[in-house]
Amino acid sequence: MKIIEGGVTAAKGFKAASAEAGIKYKGRKDMLLIYSESPCTAAGVFTSNVVKAAPVLWDREICSGIHPVHAIVGNSGIANACTGEEGRKYCSETAVEVSNLLGVPENSVLIASTGVIGMQMNIEAVKKGIGIMVPELSDSLEAGTGAAEAIMTTDTHSKEMAVEFEAGGKTCRIGALAKGSGMIHPNMCTMLSFVTTDVSISHDLLQKALRKVANETYNMISVDGDMSTNDSVMVLANGEAGNSEILEEGQDYKNFEEALYTICKEIARMLAGDGEGATALFTVHVKNADTKENARTLAKSVICSSLTKAMIYGHDANFGRILCALGYSGVVFDPEKVVLSMESTAGSVLLFKNGDPQKFDEDYATKVLSQKEVIAEVDMNMGSEEATAWGCDLSYDYVKINADYRS
Amino acid sequence: MKIIEGGVTAAKGFKAASAEAGIKYKGRKDMLLIYSESPCTAAGVFTSNVVKAAPVLWDREICSGIHPVHAIVGNSGIANACTGEEGRKYCSETAVEVSNLLGVPENSVLIASTGVIGMQMNIEAVKKGIGIMVPELSDSLEAGTGAAEAIMTTDTHSKEMAVEFEAGGKTCRIGALAKGSGMIHPNMCTMLSFVTTDVSISHDLLQKALRKVANETYNMISVDGDMSTNDSVMVLANGEAGNSEILEEGQDYKNFEEALYTICKEIARMLAGDGEGATALFTVHVKNADTKENARTLAKSVICSSLTKAMIYGHDANFGRILCALGYSGVVFDPEKVVLSMESTAGSVLLFKNGDPQKFDEDYATKVLSQKEVIAEVDMNMGSEEATAWGCDLSYDYVKINADYRS
Repeated sequence: MKIIEGGVTAAKGFKAASAEAGIKYKGRKDMLLIYSESPCTAAGVFTSNVVKAAPVLWDREICSGIHPVHAIVGNSGIANACTGEEGRKYCSETAVEVSNLLGVPENSVLIASTGVIGMQMNIEAVKKGIGIMVPELSDSLEAGTGAAEAIMTTDTHSKEMAVEFEAGGKTCRIGALAKGSGMIHPNMCTMLSFVTTDVSISHDLLQKALRKVANETYNMISVDGDMSTNDSVMVLANGEAGNSEILEEGQDYKNFEEALYTICKEIARMLAGDGEGATALFTVHVKNADTKENARTLAKSVICSSLTKAMIYGHDANFGRILCALGYSGVVFDPEKVVLSMESTAGSVLLFKNGDPQKFDEDYATKVLSQKEVIAEVDMNMGSEEATAWGCDLSYDYVKINADYRS
Repeated sequence: MKIIEGGVTAAKGFKAASAEAGIKYKGRKDMLLIYSESPCTAAGVFTSNVVKAAPVLWDREICSGIHPVHAIVGNSGIANACTGEEGRKYCSETAVEVSNLLGVPENSVLIASTGVIGMQMNIEAVKKGIGIMVPELSDSLEAGTGAAEAIMTTDTHSKEMAVEFEAGGKTCRIGALAKGSGMIHPNMCTMLSFVTTDVSISHDLLQKALRKVANETYNMISVDGDMSTNDSVMVLANGEAGNSEILEEGQDYKNFEEALYTICKEIARMLAGDGEGATALFTVHVKNADTKENARTLAKSVICSSLTKAMIYGHDANFGRILCALGYSGVVFDPEKVVLSMESTAGSVLLFKNGDPQKFDEDYATKVLSQKEVIAEVDMNMGSEEATAWGCDLSYDYVKINADYRS
């Protein structure tokens, strides 16, 4: 497996386009379209929030594997969540518009929205945007990048990535784009990630790989603990790589899963590191936990704490807050067995061991905590399971961005 | 029942003192002592954090009702949490010092600390402080207020309250002090509350009343979702009111419980409204839920959301965030049945009904959301249970206070 250039247009047979539709934002792109002429197998994982946006309800059905999929149409600015019957009608109208212009069935069109909740969609702008994008669809890498830019809300940079791997003697590709920033606590502002691949794989295995990988990557990040109404990760596989269809969990499946994991992990890290107002990526690695589930719970509890996040922002080795967050996670453990250190490219500093705070040089600790990625290494000394979670610091800018988001 | 002046010295037979011991802070009081010559029945509820501070371990045993209690000694500046064997030894030394100077048994002394976690206690300063306070013990209301001031960390004002009620034909009193501010998400920087009463009541009923009331008050507030290692609510009852001991759940018990609830609710509201960096008290009232537990979970989910908190700070009626936080609470409900409005002394504005966003005047909504207390009224239309939770907004100052708390 190797990393290659590009994003959603890296895989064979996928085209993309983006447009300034004027849905809510002015003077920037706010719509994207991804299209494969070859029919795709589609899988998806969606928010577990009880309040689900209209597009999530639409997509869940389509990703169940009954129909082939050809396109994803997405917009930023308005989330189409808490919009009732009217919001659901707009999903249908959006799919019909794409269907008419691309000549594909209405139920082969996936829809994704991100932005303000509780505001009705500007459907005329959406239709206008689709009309602009369809004739501009291109398989260039730039077209993929344009799509990644169009879906941004408060993201400070676009996110995309692509890798190449082997299956059945053929070279296959996976590409992805994503947006994140705020209301990021996936199980789901919105986390959206669209993945395209030219591998040929059954719907069941595609869904299985996506669920497993999402659980270890997207579901292990948090910006602010708020799980969105719109979170969606969708993967389209069009089979154009020409490998014989992956139907069982052999070497080809492993290669695909590894490639998908690599992409989703890096994208998840990008999302966490570009959380609203973030100045640093905060990684928590819990090792030697008694169970995998406990390792996950402990790691997530630390990245979700407002106080650990503020401590990273202040470059302050106030490690008691990390122990405190481990302690209220719901996992039972012996605090006196925990060994805690903080690491970064600037070095490593041991903070807590054998139940006692350790002496450390404050200036050195500040330097360790002042890098772009700060890692808390937590050894539970209870077993052999591990997990990693990714978050970010809590800054003035997070508050600023969210105090008046709608304006 | 009526509200009276004072705090922990309002009840008969309780004295208090405070001192500048120089434990960590400079130029301010940082220790308090509460004392009753008459032996007290004591009850307590403590943090459910797995990482428990040394004083919590000490107090839990003493509040089990085996020994009578005479005193509470408290300090701010250092939390004595994550301090291992050495930290536990300091609890014992503190109790011995109080025991020697007051002539009461060592196991009749409760201890409470709040401040930085993972830093060893300055035990010489603690002993010095006890030496200053013992000769200054006074039953004046000012002495109670002084104690409430000494326990503050990042609190912007001290918190105390007292009420009077009838039991067995006698007038009884309850007084309390508390500190809160950050790391406030009680189930427990620390929430400490000390309650004194001159009622005569059995240990079992005192503990029962405290647990029930704490569950409806202290456990329904959150400043930042971080449950401290030190949270403790302790109540001392010395029986000096002269009522015949409350031994069953009759009218006297009801009067006591109502008085305790009134105090704890108001103290809890003070703690939430004075959360670190807070500019407003954010109250969420959920009604017509299917179960009490679900009503509680829904209300707490909304006050704990960084995004609803930032919205209150920005006076922005971005109500989708409230629905979003209800949606990820874990409670199953039909979003289309929810009716949501925001209220304050400036009026009421309906935001969401029948699954649809409601039209509202933005200027009026901003005015409603700009008051010192902002209330979200959430009607689930599922049943008849209700719950209230109290939080605060999320401001730049929360980040500022916590980015470099140890300095």
